[in-house]
Formats: sequence, C-alpha cells, structure tokens
Amino acid sequence: MTTTLETDVLIVGGGPAGMMCGITAAQFWPSRRVLLVRPEEQAVVPCGIPYIFGTLGGTDEDLAGRAPFLAAGGRILIGRIASVNRDARHATLEDGTRIAWNRLVLATGSTPFVPPIDGHALDGVFQIHKQYDYLDELLSERLPGVATLAILGGGFIGVEFSDELRKRGIEVHLIEQRPRLLGASFDADASEAVAARLRALGVKVHTGATVAAIEAQADGVRVAGVRLDNGGRLSVEAVLIAIGTRPDTRLAGDMGLTLSRSGGIWVDGFQQCREDPQIFAVGDCAHKQDFFTRHANHALLASQAAAEGRIAGMNLYGLKLPRTNAGTIAVYASQIDELAFGVAGLTEHSARDIGFEVFTGDARLPDHHPATMPGTHEVHCRLVFDANSERLIGGQVIGGPTTAEILNTLAVAIQLRATATDLASFQFGSHPRLTAPVHPIVAATGEALRRRLGTA
Amino acid sequence: MTTTLETDVLIVGGGPAGMMCGITAAQFWPSRRVLLVRPEEQAVVPCGIPYIFGTLGGTDEDLAGRAPFLAAGGRILIGRIASVNRDARHATLEDGTRIAWNRLVLATGSTPFVPPIDGHALDGVFQIHKQYDYLDELLSERLPGVATLAILGGGFIGVEFSDELRKRGIEVHLIEQRPRLLGASFDADASEAVAARLRALGVKVHTGATVAAIEAQADGVRVAGVRLDNGGRLSVEAVLIAIGTRPDTRLAGDMGLTLSRSGGIWVDGFQQCREDPQIFAVGDCAHKQDFFTRHANHALLASQAAAEGRIAGMNLYGLKLPRTNAGTIAVYASQIDELAFGVAGLTEHSARDIGFEVFTGDARLPDHHPATMPGTHEVHCRLVFDANSERLIGGQVIGGPTTAEILNTLAVAIQLRATATDLASFQFGSHPRLTAPVHPIVAATGEALRRRLGTA
Repeated sequence: MTTTLETDVLIVGGGPAGMMCGITAAQFWPSRRVLLVRPEEQAVVPCGIPYIFGTLGGTDEDLAGRAPFLAAGGRILIGRIASVNRDARHATLEDGTRIAWNRLVLATGSTPFVPPIDGHALDGVFQIHKQYDYLDELLSERLPGVATLAILGGGFIGVEFSDELRKRGIEVHLIEQRPRLLGASFDADASEAVAARLRALGVKVHTGATVAAIEAQADGVRVAGVRLDNGGRLSVEAVLIAIGTRPDTRLAGDMGLTLSRSGGIWVDGFQQCREDPQIFAVGDCAHKQDFFTRHANHALLASQAAAEGRIAGMNLYGLKLPRTNAGTIAVYASQIDELAFGVAGLTEHSARDIGFEVFTGDARLPDHHPATMPGTHEVHCRLVFDANSERLIGGQVIGGPTTAEILNTLAVAIQLRATATDLASFQFGSHPRLTAPVHPIVAATGEALRRRLGTA
Repeated sequence: MTTTLETDVLIVGGGPAGMMCGITAAQFWPSRRVLLVRPEEQAVVPCGIPYIFGTLGGTDEDLAGRAPFLAAGGRILIGRIASVNRDARHATLEDGTRIAWNRLVLATGSTPFVPPIDGHALDGVFQIHKQYDYLDELLSERLPGVATLAILGGGFIGVEFSDELRKRGIEVHLIEQRPRLLGASFDADASEAVAARLRALGVKVHTGATVAAIEAQADGVRVAGVRLDNGGRLSVEAVLIAIGTRPDTRLAGDMGLTLSRSGGIWVDGFQQCREDPQIFAVGDCAHKQDFFTRHANHALLASQAAAEGRIAGMNLYGLKLPRTNAGTIAVYASQIDELAFGVAGLTEHSARDIGFEVFTGDARLPDHHPATMPGTHEVHCRLVFDANSERLIGGQVIGGPTTAEILNTLAVAIQLRATATDLASFQFGSHPRLTAPVHPIVAATGEALRRRLGTA
C-alpha cells in the first residue's frame, strides 16, 4: 500500500531559493502546511563552498541552517522526487511515498557544467557540486596530498577557489579562456587588479588559455596534467572544473513544463509556470530575464535565487504583495585576501555592447577618513549612466569590507531608477571609522556629470 | 592704500560645507576663480575630532586635506572676514584687505553651545571647538594629567568622546539630561545597547541627570567637580561640554540677511539667501528644513553640510544641476569599540511623535554567512514605514563595520521614496565574507509586512 502525505505547499529542493520560498510561505501563509523535500540530510551554503577549503576550514562550518524554516512552521523531508502528476496534484518520491499538494514550487537548482574534453572523467578531476558528502570527501580525502592543481574557469568561483586552495599550500594554476579574469562581470582595470592580487599571493594566472585535454598518468586513471591549445602543458595532480552551472530542469521537463530557449523553466513575473498557475519555479532552475534587456541572464546567484523564492512565497495563494520579478540586475561581490570587488548591473563595456550610449564617472577615496584612520582601504567606484535617461545602469566597486554594501546601495538606486541628478547631491551619512569622507557614489556621479558637461 | 583682491566666487569658511562647495565650484565652473577664506592655517576633519584623543592619537592625524580643492584650481587665503558690503560686492578682511566677488558663499559653521551654568568658565572646562590650535593644546597640554573627567551631553559626540578618552585611561563620567543616551536619534533598545557597551568599557553613564553647577577648587580657579540637580556630586578634574553647537550667523546678521526663526541663515532649495541670489549659505550656518516635516531640523552633520556645499557649488552661475536641497534626512552612524550603530531618517518614536501612523519590522542577522565566518557581527535592522503610503521613512541599524553603508542604502531608499513592496523582494548581492545571507533591509521589510498583515 502506498503511503500518502498531504501538504498545501510542496517545495522541491532545499537551496537558497527553496528554503527562502519555504520560510516566506510559512510566514506569510501561516494557515498553510509547507513541506520542503530535498535529497541532502545536510545542506551547505552555496556561496560559502570555496571557503570550506580555507577560511572556514571544514564542511560542517558551512551548513545552511534549517532553524528559521522550522521555526516558521515548515517541515523538511529528506528524499528525492521521482515524478509529479500535475493533473492529480501529487508527487512521488523514489521510495514510493506519495505527496499530495495544491501548490508546487520547483527549486531544483543547477548542476556543474563539465566541458566535453578528453580526460574529464579521470581520477583527480573535481567539480563544484553543492552536496555535503561530495564536498566533505573532497576536503578530507581527495585534496589532502594534492600539491598542484589547475582550476578551469576564471570567474568568481574559480577566483575564490584559487585563493582558498593556495591558503592550503597548494600550487594553483587558474586557467581562463578569455583574455582576462572575471571578464563577463568586470571592466578591464578591475580584472587586472584581481589578477595582480592573486599573482602576488602565488597563484599562477593563465588568461587567454584554453584547456584542450586533461592528461592521464601512465596508469590511465589519474590526472597527470593539462594540455593547453597553444601547445603548452602544465603538470598538475588535480583539476577543478569551475566553468559554471546549468539549470537542473529534468523534473520540469518530465512534467511537460515549458522551458525557455536558454534552458531554465519558463516563469512569469510571479515565478508561475506557463501551464499552471499553481506551479512555481524559483532559483537556478528558473529562467532569468535581464533587468535591462529582457534577454536571458545567465548569472545564477544565490541572492537572486532567494529574491525569487521570496516573490513566489508571498504570492502562492494570491498576490499578498503585488511584486513581480523585475529581472536580474546581477549584484556580485567577492573578496581575495583583503581586496573586495564587485559589480551591480552593467559594466561600461557590457552597457556599450548592448547598445547603450553611456557616460561614466570614477572616484577613488579612502573608506575611512581621514586616511590615517586604522584599517583604511582605498575604494574605487565607477558608475555607468544611460546618456539619454541619465539613469544609473551599473556600477563597479573595488575596496575594503564595505564594498558589498556600497554595491547594494547601487542596486537599490538602479532598481528605483535613480538618475545622475538624484545621486549627485544625495544625502549620505559619513563617519571617520566607517565610511569615506564623501560617499563614493556621490563623488563618482559628480565626475560623471562633469565629464558629460565637458568640465572634467 | 587698500589691497584689493579679485575673485569670482568667495567662500567664507573652510569646513566640510565650504571646502566641498569650493571643490564643486572649481570643478563645475572651471573658468571662474574660486577663493576660500578661512581663519585656520590647518583645518581638522570635524567628525574625526573625538578620534584625535584615542584612535588617531594626534591632531596632525586628523587634518582635512586641501589638495583636492587646490588641484581643482581653487585658492585658499588664511584670514578673517570682518565685513561684507553687499551692494559694492566686496568683503573686507580684518587686516583691511578687500576682496571683490560676484558670488558669495557663507560657510561660517557653528560654535559650541555653552550652557549658562555656574562654573562654566573655570579652568578645566573644555568645549569642542573645531580649531586645530585649541584641540592640539587640549591634547598635548590640558588633558595630560587629568585622571577624571565629566562629559556633559550624551549625544553622538559625547558618546564618542567618552570611548576615546577612556582609552587614555581617564575615568569618564558621561552625563545626559534625558532618560537615555542618544535619545534624540535612537529608539530605546539601541540607546541601551550603546550604554551597556560603554559601561562594559568602564565609562560611568549617568542618564536622567542634569548638571546644576560646575564646582571650583579652593583656589576658585580650577574644576573640583560637578553638582547634579538631584543632589549628587561627582569629583572630577575636568569637564567637557558636548551639548551641541549653534549656527554661527554673526557675519550674516551684520550683512542684514534673513535668519530663520530657528537660527540658521534662511536659504532656498538651491542654498540661495532670501535677499540676494548671488549670496549662498551652506552647512551648519544655514537653516535646515526637515525632509519629512519642513520644520527646522537641528542635526548639524558634516555629511549634510557637504551635500549643501555640492548643491550650491553646482548652481552658482545657473542651474547646472536642477537639484535642490530636499531637506535633512539626518543619516548618522558611529562606533564604540566594535559596536557600530546609526540611523537614517525617522525612528519609530520620532515618527509617531510627528503624527505618522507607522508599521515597523525588525531583523537580526549575522553580517557574514554562515555565522561561523571569522569576523562575524550581528546586525539588527529596524525599519519604519508610513502606514498610508507604505513608504520607508526611517531605519536604525546596530552592527559591525558595514553598518554605515547599510544606513546609506536606507538613505537612498528614503530619498527615492521606496515602498515596502519595493523593498520586500529587492535584489541585493550577498557574499559569505562581506554580507548577511539575506539583506537586513529585505528581512526587516518582510517582517514589517507580515506584522501589518497579521501573520507575524
């Protein structure tokens, strides 16, 4: 006989999108039962994964808490959904357990992309899976003894891993196809600042280099090195593939849900699927529209996933909040050593590529004042404005510990469609130990206006 | 014979408002001559003054740079303006030098308020003047040897001084008339957190206590202690008065300019004086209208002063930027030990006092994630929304080093009139080493909406 569980809301997947949707649903719809099903007993914080290997020092130090969800009244079931019957409104676990639902949220996440190159399945080739068991084995059994390692992919994850792994004493080769690191996210000077810092820390940075194959040792089993398409070769004992992830839409595909042309599950502004307003998709598995262009945006970010989970969670049984997903702005930040860096919205080059006519402004300031204050870092802020509307469309910040919150200020300004006029004389607070003397956004906006007026 | 200098723009005063106006004027109007006259050879960073006595360790460590102004093409003259002839468009220095101008900017600042209590002129009673010489003498000659000191006034400046002076080994009594510290700026729980931290650091905090008199030693010259109006008495060797400052409008008064009923120079939205559109006033000497009420706002902040300097500087010869002063939001932040705290806009109690019907939300989160990340502090964010428009009207943050930039994000949201709906699912960036897992603004907005909906 089949066991049948009943819930109101069934959430499939326990990453940031699923968990945030669950917390929000339980909080905003307290009379509804919310059940989250995920395969992992222990879930890790995805953006904390690189830090397991250095700063945090352990997989158990990177656990995503379930307490807020449970405290809100949600329940968690460990298992894998094998199939969903949309008409009958139930899902079936691999063990045969049936779950009846009236709202289904797909938060199935993404899986690492592995390029189809020779040797990708050799022993010693690692991927960045988000599973606790995989990561814990990597940390405690696979990596110890590895003295040299190549990372394929010089995006944020590759850059973060290279810094964390070099802290373990591993000689790290960071290999990026494009001419520079973080090329998709940053203008050239910021990429160069990050590359310079990594080199100073002992990381071997190889840009404009493509790995043609991963080579095996004589045993045909273990990694011996990587061959580059320019004929070069690097001897390494291990390879970490950090090229990106792809939406995991297997379940959605089996259910016959529409996928976007770029691969994610098609969703409307409330994260509802095309076929059925009682089925939602959030996070990496869901299609992302770009805030500026409406084209697909391929940045799969935990913060964006959580925002989508929140929108779906609030609107499961009616629009408690008439808030739709306005599209992905892509607000990133990271830190290598003491150097923090990030971007909100468009960079100068990406804006021009899209076709925006832009004007830009730069400011370089200390992040405390006067600059004699202990712990002072330089902040470099570059803002990008659309020349026709004068609206802020992006910003890049390189600085100290406050970098990410300065970017969040930019993110708010972009979302509220602030103009250069708005920002040029905005009121900001300042304090010697906590901020620059002039807010970098105000200073950079001033320079942008002066360049535009021809007085810079 | 009288020496006559000629300039286009004459700025009187070299604090944040004057200096920022000068930089902006020189940058936006490069064909105009900009001359700044100030009495001090060396100018200090005003908000850095408390830190001279502890963290910075020297007056020379708190100098306000003149380099950006000079680099922009401005000139500085050390001297005091004795009078201004508005009709003839010239000013006269105390040494008789005459300066012809066609735009005049008054940035004469403020002076410490000294309450008319017995003993206020005794030897050992100090004020917080912004002059280099006064501060340097205080640091190097007056304070050494002082073992016990009372600070009158438990606002931001009093709180900051008490932390810095206790670092020197001085036993500090902090005396505040109101029932709690920072009462004008903070809700009660935040005041209590600051008081508790100060007490833990050894500062003696006396709230609800008024100083009736400062008592003299037998010599009738030096301070012996302070007498409280509840009959108590504290033996101290010195007293620091930190009750606040008053606009310095002597020159404006002599010129016959209109003053506001609350004491500052009357200015319009472009910082122009009532009588003459070629005369501007900026910073502490200028009247401040509150962003929310249009009543006078008595917060005299360097950041606000600088914003006014920027508005005037851009618009001296026509509206290069059609930006007016929207009124004071009052964005403050400070830090005691590792505890940072601040406010942007209205607190819950000040909003209710004004007559707003409000709803509020609180969030407590780590400022890194997971919370096992080294250097993690708790952030407590409280947001205040107007119940009718749903607009954000204020926020209070207690946390770590990113506190002030979170407040600046709130300041932008307030100025752009963001609603709870806007903020509840806003996109923010997150990073384990740099931010909370969920942005405190999003979390607190969510809680506010749930309280409002009755599901919290």
